[in-house]
Amino acid sequence: MTNTFDYSGAFAAAVGKVRQEGRYREFADICRIRGRFPRALYRGRDGEREVTVWCSNDYLGMGQHPKVLAAMHEALDEIGAGSGGTRNISGTNHHHVLLEAELADLHGKEAALLFNSGYMANEATLSTLGRLLPGCVMLSDELNHASMIEGIRHGRCDKVIWRHNDLADLEAKLKALDPARPKIIAFESVYSMDGDIAPIAQICDLAKRYGALTYLDEVHAVGMYGPRGGGVAERDGLLDHVDIIEGTLAKAFGVMGGYVAASTMLIDAVRSTAAGFIFTTSLAPVLAAGTVASVRHLKESGEERALQHKHAALLKRELARLGLPVVLSPSHIVPVIVGDPVLCKQLTDRLLAEFQIYVQPINYPTVPKGSERIRLTPGPLHGELEIARLVSALDQLWTAMTLKRAA
Amino acid sequence: MTNTFDYSGAFAAAVGKVRQEGRYREFADICRIRGRFPRALYRGRDGEREVTVWCSNDYLGMGQHPKVLAAMHEALDEIGAGSGGTRNISGTNHHHVLLEAELADLHGKEAALLFNSGYMANEATLSTLGRLLPGCVMLSDELNHASMIEGIRHGRCDKVIWRHNDLADLEAKLKALDPARPKIIAFESVYSMDGDIAPIAQICDLAKRYGALTYLDEVHAVGMYGPRGGGVAERDGLLDHVDIIEGTLAKAFGVMGGYVAASTMLIDAVRSTAAGFIFTTSLAPVLAAGTVASVRHLKESGEERALQHKHAALLKRELARLGLPVVLSPSHIVPVIVGDPVLCKQLTDRLLAEFQIYVQPINYPTVPKGSERIRLTPGPLHGELEIARLVSALDQLWTAMTLKRAA
Repeated sequence: MTNTFDYSGAFAAAVGKVRQEGRYREFADICRIRGRFPRALYRGRDGEREVTVWCSNDYLGMGQHPKVLAAMHEALDEIGAGSGGTRNISGTNHHHVLLEAELADLHGKEAALLFNSGYMANEATLSTLGRLLPGCVMLSDELNHASMIEGIRHGRCDKVIWRHNDLADLEAKLKALDPARPKIIAFESVYSMDGDIAPIAQICDLAKRYGALTYLDEVHAVGMYGPRGGGVAERDGLLDHVDIIEGTLAKAFGVMGGYVAASTMLIDAVRSTAAGFIFTTSLAPVLAAGTVASVRHLKESGEERALQHKHAALLKRELARLGLPVVLSPSHIVPVIVGDPVLCKQLTDRLLAEFQIYVQPINYPTVPKGSERIRLTPGPLHGELEIARLVSALDQLWTAMTLKRAA
Repeated sequence: MTNTFDYSGAFAAAVGKVRQEGRYREFADICRIRGRFPRALYRGRDGEREVTVWCSNDYLGMGQHPKVLAAMHEALDEIGAGSGGTRNISGTNHHHVLLEAELADLHGKEAALLFNSGYMANEATLSTLGRLLPGCVMLSDELNHASMIEGIRHGRCDKVIWRHNDLADLEAKLKALDPARPKIIAFESVYSMDGDIAPIAQICDLAKRYGALTYLDEVHAVGMYGPRGGGVAERDGLLDHVDIIEGTLAKAFGVMGGYVAASTMLIDAVRSTAAGFIFTTSLAPVLAAGTVASVRHLKESGEERALQHKHAALLKRELARLGLPVVLSPSHIVPVIVGDPVLCKQLTDRLLAEFQIYVQPINYPTVPKGSERIRLTPGPLHGELEIARLVSALDQLWTAMTLKRAA
């Protein structure tokens, strides 16, 4: 038939648009080297070589921790690989039960619920809350993560977007709503691309004043803030003030998966009705076992957190000393602004080719046009020598490429 | 404030409704025993005891296979636990690259793309296709899985539901649509709850005649049908006729994760634009490594498939011989109809308490009211003695509980 739709043309056009916007991604093929993180094997067109990873979200190197790996080896030996079913149909393993208890305890909440990713935790929980609360309004920080945006969209309730971390704007928007309507304020603690931190206490005060629930995404904070790694809400003594905390097992805890922690009743409602929870094979027990070990370790040990924060401070100080345009964030995330997508890609290509330093360029739409950047994530396993090498490489390339320095 | 919304009340009401409909779920806490599957440790209120699992979707026992576990141990030793990032930002591991090549080859397609679950593969791919194809109509089999329904819904294009496996109804609905509009026929090969199989050849013929793409969910078939485990489409020589095949790593392959396989251009479009793919930490390398071993093994070995089909046939024959209301499905899935939610739950409770046999009851809304059932999944590791014990237990309970036998 000649008049049918041209599917290949449509897919080619979609990819062409991404290319045209300079957003086409070729994935770097990386094998981290266990025991030597942040070193990794990079497989490029010209063969294989060793690089230093400076953009991993395994923020504390827990993906390499002997306790985590021992727990995973043991779980493989005892149980095997996958769970074999949904949570309801033969797929609840004892490690899931233990992990949910650890996570509830970590956040001072009654209950927690596991998902296969932080993305699914946000998507499934927010969409389910939207459906369960009649007439609900979601008040969403404008810089919320894609998974929160999708969850809110799928909940098919009214959405109000408030200016990033802007309490006056949030209050104005709360005030304009019917007090009797259910409301959820959805926001993050540490924002991934700028490394800035939300005013959680004040947001919770507003929530209380206007009768809203608070939904706090702590994926870039769990394990790294607070005396037991409970996140910024724990650090600031606000665990009781936040209704729902969402976290990930795939960043500071070093494994894979996501979760929410909240009251027993709320968790039971999500557990009992969220499609994205019910109709999916549960997390492989080997992952749950590894994360139990990781969460328990980071509850006891502050060493990894202290070293991470020390290294982040050192890196920021050194970059600033040389006039490199580093964002002096209050968190462990170290963005350095390039301000142009082509130069940003060239910079990271040269870091890899000339200095064996692997960093991904961050371009639009992940960050606004004109604020293209590299996003460095120093951890406890990046030594001071590696930090010095990175700073020197950036300084040399900034000169060689005549990139803009800080004012 | 007294006039704010009662959140706890709303959550309690949602859970109350689930309870009232007899759908409230208490998860059985299970630890499978590696090397002795289908045996597992069940932790109940009265302590721990050994049971035989008869409802796992680890259909071929690959979650216990020495090759799979060896590959996972090795990956843990070499790489560590999690991937540490999204596929684009430091999270593409060499095992992902190898696994995508294995899966593309398995289905005779140019490319494949990994997701963290089959649910996400369906949700992200279908919603993305809906958004990429202007004016697209999704033609969805009425019994499609929740993840397909959600994906189609999130694609925000027109949806037409056709009667289950009904070619005349599908053709009538295709005929009624503008030939120039893009169309996707979304269906499954093996339907999980009845074990029936779609007429793939005829559906593909209709798709060709009416200019539609075909999207085939083979999650209950990959690994188990076809000479290399490529699914029912491979068995029936139809790999070239199906445009998009979706599969899971969490059932017959025994691990965790999902994927789609299709043309390079289609995969690249999904890879480059699907939020549920882009904004999530990639599959833990240890899972990818285990699945590579599993897929490779099942491409070479037909032994597991042959034994599974032999045991399924034996179980169906024995149940039918005793007049138990078994559905004589053309697949490995063996449903036995109880027809009442309360009796169904009582039956499974007694199987567990009196016979150490673990099966979940399947009630509304997973299956229509009046067709409540148990769903048995015999595999290569269920021996003939275990089959005889199961049949005898069911026969005894059918008499004791005066359940309805087949006509």
